[in-house]
Amino acid sequence: MAGDNAASGDRLSTGIEGLDTILFGGIPLGNQVVVGGGPGAGKTLLCFEIIYQNAKMGIPCAFIALEEQEKVVLNNFKRAFPAFSDVDELVSSNKIVLAGEEVAAKIQVGSDSESYSFGNVLSSMENVIRSNGAKCVVIDSLSLIKLMFGKSTVYRRYMLALSSNLRRLGVTSLLTVELPRTNRGDMVFSPEFFIFDGTIVMYQNLEEDKRAFNLEVVKMRGSNHSLSFAPYEITNKGFKVFSISEA
Amino acid sequence: MAGDNAASGDRLSTGIEGLDTILFGGIPLGNQVVVGGGPGAGKTLLCFEIIYQNAKMGIPCAFIALEEQEKVVLNNFKRAFPAFSDVDELVSSNKIVLAGEEVAAKIQVGSDSESYSFGNVLSSMENVIRSNGAKCVVIDSLSLIKLMFGKSTVYRRYMLALSSNLRRLGVTSLLTVELPRTNRGDMVFSPEFFIFDGTIVMYQNLEEDKRAFNLEVVKMRGSNHSLSFAPYEITNKGFKVFSISEA
Amino acid sequence: MAGDNAASGDRLSTGIEGLDTILFGGIPLGNQVVVGGGPGAGKTLLCFEIIYQNAKMGIPCAFIALEEQEKVVLNNFKRAFPAFSDVDELVSSNKIVLAGEEVAAKIQVGSDSESYSFGNVLSSMENVIRSNGAKCVVIDSLSLIKLMFGKSTVYRRYMLALSSNLRRLGVTSLLTVELPRTNRGDMVFSPEFFIFDGTIVMYQNLEEDKRAFNLEVVKMRGSNHSLSFAPYEITNKGFKVFSISEA
Amino acid sequence: MAGDNAASGDRLSTGIEGLDTILFGGIPLGNQVVVGGGPGAGKTLLCFEIIYQNAKMGIPCAFIALEEQEKVVLNNFKRAFPAFSDVDELVSSNKIVLAGEEVAAKIQVGSDSESYSFGNVLSSMENVIRSNGAKCVVIDSLSLIKLMFGKSTVYRRYMLALSSNLRRLGVTSLLTVELPRTNRGDMVFSPEFFIFDGTIVMYQNLEEDKRAFNLEVVKMRGSNHSLSFAPYEITNKGFKVFSISEA
Amino acid sequence: MAGDNAASGDRLSTGIEGLDTILFGGIPLGNQVVVGGGPGAGKTLLCFEIIYQNAKMGIPCAFIALEEQEKVVLNNFKRAFPAFSDVDELVSSNKIVLAGEEVAAKIQVGSDSESYSFGNVLSSMENVIRSNGAKCVVIDSLSLIKLMFGKSTVYRRYMLALSSNLRRLGVTSLLTVELPRTNRGDMVFSPEFFIFDGTIVMYQNLEEDKRAFNLEVVKMRGSNHSLSFAPYEITNKGFKVFSISEA
Amino acid sequence: MAGDNAASGDRLSTGIEGLDTILFGGIPLGNQVVVGGGPGAGKTLLCFEIIYQNAKMGIPCAFIALEEQEKVVLNNFKRAFPAFSDVDELVSSNKIVLAGEEVAAKIQVGSDSESYSFGNVLSSMENVIRSNGAKCVVIDSLSLIKLMFGKSTVYRRYMLALSSNLRRLGVTSLLTVELPRTNRGDMVFSPEFFIFDGTIVMYQNLEEDKRAFNLEVVKMRGSNHSLSFAPYEITNKGFKVFSISEA
Repeated sequence: MAGDNAASGDRLSTGIEGLDTILFGGIPLGNQVVVGGGPGAGKTLLCFEIIYQNAKMGIPCAFIALEEQEKVVLNNFKRAFPAFSDVDELVSSNKIVLAGEEVAAKIQVGSDSESYSFGNVLSSMENVIRSNGAKCVVIDSLSLIKLMFGKSTVYRRYMLALSSNLRRLGVTSLLTVELPRTNRGDMVFSPEFFIFDGTIVMYQNLEEDKRAFNLEVVKMRGSNHSLSFAPYEITNKGFKVFSISEA
Repeated sequence: MAGDNAASGDRLSTGIEGLDTILFGGIPLGNQVVVGGGPGAGKTLLCFEIIYQNAKMGIPCAFIALEEQEKVVLNNFKRAFPAFSDVDELVSSNKIVLAGEEVAAKIQVGSDSESYSFGNVLSSMENVIRSNGAKCVVIDSLSLIKLMFGKSTVYRRYMLALSSNLRRLGVTSLLTVELPRTNRGDMVFSPEFFIFDGTIVMYQNLEEDKRAFNLEVVKMRGSNHSLSFAPYEITNKGFKVFSISEA
Repeated sequence: MAGDNAASGDRLSTGIEGLDTILFGGIPLGNQVVVGGGPGAGKTLLCFEIIYQNAKMGIPCAFIALEEQEKVVLNNFKRAFPAFSDVDELVSSNKIVLAGEEVAAKIQVGSDSESYSFGNVLSSMENVIRSNGAKCVVIDSLSLIKLMFGKSTVYRRYMLALSSNLRRLGVTSLLTVELPRTNRGDMVFSPEFFIFDGTIVMYQNLEEDKRAFNLEVVKMRGSNHSLSFAPYEITNKGFKVFSISEA
Repeated sequence: MAGDNAASGDRLSTGIEGLDTILFGGIPLGNQVVVGGGPGAGKTLLCFEIIYQNAKMGIPCAFIALEEQEKVVLNNFKRAFPAFSDVDELVSSNKIVLAGEEVAAKIQVGSDSESYSFGNVLSSMENVIRSNGAKCVVIDSLSLIKLMFGKSTVYRRYMLALSSNLRRLGVTSLLTVELPRTNRGDMVFSPEFFIFDGTIVMYQNLEEDKRAFNLEVVKMRGSNHSLSFAPYEITNKGFKVFSISEA
Repeated sequence: MAGDNAASGDRLSTGIEGLDTILFGGIPLGNQVVVGGGPGAGKTLLCFEIIYQNAKMGIPCAFIALEEQEKVVLNNFKRAFPAFSDVDELVSSNKIVLAGEEVAAKIQVGSDSESYSFGNVLSSMENVIRSNGAKCVVIDSLSLIKLMFGKSTVYRRYMLALSSNLRRLGVTSLLTVELPRTNRGDMVFSPEFFIFDGTIVMYQNLEEDKRAFNLEVVKMRGSNHSLSFAPYEITNKGFKVFSISEA
Repeated sequence: MAGDNAASGDRLSTGIEGLDTILFGGIPLGNQVVVGGGPGAGKTLLCFEIIYQNAKMGIPCAFIALEEQEKVVLNNFKRAFPAFSDVDELVSSNKIVLAGEEVAAKIQVGSDSESYSFGNVLSSMENVIRSNGAKCVVIDSLSLIKLMFGKSTVYRRYMLALSSNLRRLGVTSLLTVELPRTNRGDMVFSPEFFIFDGTIVMYQNLEEDKRAFNLEVVKMRGSNHSLSFAPYEITNKGFKVFSISEA
């Protein structure tokens, strides 16, 4: 396996040590990364912590919550990670923009006919991102969009449009996807895993008497990455990703 | 794994010792928890016992039975748990409101066309909850709603509306879901497991010559929880959940 | 596991010793029990023997055969169990009402459009039950109704109506369901297993060089029951269910 | 397992020694038996040999070939079993009526719309059976009818009508069904296995370096039967079924 | 297992020694044999070599290529088997007729509506066969026809018509079918495997570090055949089928 | 296994040593090869490296990117393989034509009705190929086309048209296909694997604690090839395919 092949200036550190290690330094700037996992895997928390860690380093960020009120998302984050209570300052100082209701409203208002203009959703997202000049964006979750627009051909077209829009805006992005099964061996890759630049999957493998959390970087365009499964824990102080060192 | 990160005043005790243990103290107040299981797993009984135990501690509760006459639900509970015969007093003193027929009627009356107003169902539920100022609510079961409204996009939208409504009312809630398969390895997570705050699954694993009951907290927003599978029994005196102590 | 928690006066003995044992005394009166199994498992014979044994004890019973002429059902029973030849007297003395043709005719006459009135089927069943004041009723099989009415939402609604009707009539009932697979591990639970009060599954597990019959009480509202699989045989003198004694 | 419980005068011998043994004497007279198997299992040959053996004993028989010209079926039989060359005499003396073309024509002529009258098919079959007063009838195969009539509710209704018709005619019948998979563990039972009186399945289990033929009597109304799998071979002199003796 | 029961004059030798061995001498004259396999199994090459070997023995043959230009098929054959370069003479002397474009054109020209006349396809095939009085015919592949005509009831009807047509012409035929999976255990048999007289499946079993080729004669009307799996190789000099000798 | 049976002048070297070895020299000129794999397998990079290596040897090539802007594809390639930075010269000297936007535009512009003219897509591709007289062409990916045109019968017809067009142009081509599962045992072969001349699959097998990359040549018309699975790595200096030498 090759070493780091993007200069560190070309990457967005996730702020999570073990995760940066298996990413060989971070996410290549501008990449669009799908984060998939089952319920309880911590998809939303992981993405929020990356936002939080980057905002603390001074990078403007945005979190677009399509299914949840923004203050609920913030509250869940604070309850899960008491050590990150300074997140409120980051929000009030606009380093983190929390949004989504106005985007979700665009979806809710429309009928579920095929002719609904996905363009409104995209421009609504763009407004959020431009509001603080965010460099790193989370969209939580793509599964909502998938369900709202029935036909798979339509969904794929919208994903291509979303990808193209995010690239034009120049942001690095994390897009969550809900997985119906949580075991490594049962993974089925739908179109979004091919369209976007990167794929991180959070597995919950069934062991003798409990679930075990494992994270895998399946794909990361423009960079090499670890091919191993990395165990992780969700602690009061955020994510701990255990990477086995590789040459 | 982190310790308890919600103050105990922020939680609803389930009144079931072992279950509180694996929940690291109880369900965070205001959380909406999906309880999934196959036939015979005891979903309805578990939710009713939580209602019963809380009502005994003076907390007003509501049980919305969509598929069963209210008096039948009460009767089944008393027959299953003779030790809890004082449940009648809790019902007559309005600490527990048992309802559902008027909600189910709203569904039965409507045609099964897509345009049926789910709003009637929601306001009907709200009336029940307001009738005794319930703080803890059971809805048994979501699967009925799923089957009544054919399209999955519609079902998800209704679940988002239900979630938003329950949050506005400020109640802690338990929502049962029927699972077609009972084994851990066969679990498939549908949208409700992502939309709501928590997921508890009751498995019946096939062993050599019988079924074995196991319970798992898959997800609980705003709190850590045990990652282990906890065996349980249904006794004359209610549920016994066996938790392995964790640091 | 708790002991018997319904007084014996509250139960219907199945008249089959081993089955009563694993039911901890019998079926709680008024319960509606789904009996599922593959071809050759003996669903119809088991239900008929329960009818026969109860009729001999003086309890009026009814057998509603939706797919088979009544005299054919009777004949199959007599050929399978020569020791029960006195069944003819029970039929002629009206202790057992054998019916179904007029119910099935109601289904056959109707078109297979969604608007067909399931009400005719229900009132036709009610006439049969009232004809001898039956306390225990078999409906063989629900699968016919499932196939006749295409949409699963419609089927579930009809099952809820059937359940509500049987409860109003106050009868204890057994409802057979055809299972496409016969192995324990392949079991998938459809809505009827959740709607009705009890579930008994008759498995045919593949062993080295033959099938082995096993019976399981998966669910029984208002009562505890054995969690073990009970081997059974179909002999000239009726069913033999082998229960392992439990405390 | 109980012994033979139908008097031998009440049974149709299959004329195949081992098969009669596991059937505890033969097929109860008037029973309708589904014979399922994958390609190459020998369904058609087995049914034809039963016809042949019975015709030799003087019993008039009929073979209704829906997919194949009658002379082709006869030719295949003679080529597979050179020892049974006297089958020609049985055909010319009308002990065996070979038919099907006029029945199949009834199907081909009709459009594939749902309203096609299945009644024509039934009366056409009846004419064949009445032509030589056949007591034993083969219909090869039900799968053709299944495919011709799309909807499963329609197919089941036609199968009920076919069953009722055969019963009225008083014949013992064998009805072949094509199985898409040939292994014991993969068996899925469709409606015909529940509607008709008996089920014999011919498996081809995959072993290390070849297929092994096994036959199982899954169901036989009005009689007990062996529960074991019986290996079989197709030889120049007909079927050899190896039964393990049972008490 | 019985010995050869068709006189050798009644069979078409495949010209491939090991294959003739497991066919107990060859394919019974006039049989229609389905040859199924995954990509790379060599279905087309095997059928073409049988044509080639027979043409060399003076038997006129036809190869109807529905998906490929005729000269491409010929070229692929010559590139795969340099040792068979004399195939050109067989083609130019009309011992082998290579066709298909005019048949495929008939399909392409028609719309994909259900009313498209499959009769044109059949008469087009007949013209090819009559052009050199072919005794052995390959149709490559049935899967194209299956996909072109959507409904499975229609496909089956066309297959019955094709079978009947080939029988009327008196030819021995090989019909290729594409299999989506290549492992023995995953085999699912669709209608064509039941309609036609014979079935040969070419498996590619996954072994430790490569695929292994195995061939099986699943069915062959009018003849016994080996029940073993026969390993095979594709060499410069054609197919090598390794048969284990049987008594 | 036979040796190389196409003269080396008849082959396109892939420029990747190990891959040429298992291809027994390279891809037969004019062949159309499907390259399938899951996300992160490196399908696009492998195809681009083959283009790059051939362009360096002076052979004009084209890369048609249907889902990605051309400059993004180029950028990803340079970031993945810093050692191949001279790719820019090959592009500016027109040895490599990077295109796709105008082709994709043809798809996007059209409605998703069945009547959309796929011919525009084909002629658009032809224009790209003719622009530099490309001898080797990559189309990335067929899955986009599959999703854009709903019905499988239509997709297959378009694939036949694409194949015929590429053959007329005389180019050697690589066509990527997205696979939803990445394990060898889960492979399901859809029509494109049968229509085109060659199939290379890039697997990611799950091992104890990581994914392992393996490549297999499943099919290659007009040539023999290795039947083994070849491990591979993606390094800074391109692909390394590890072939086990065969006689």
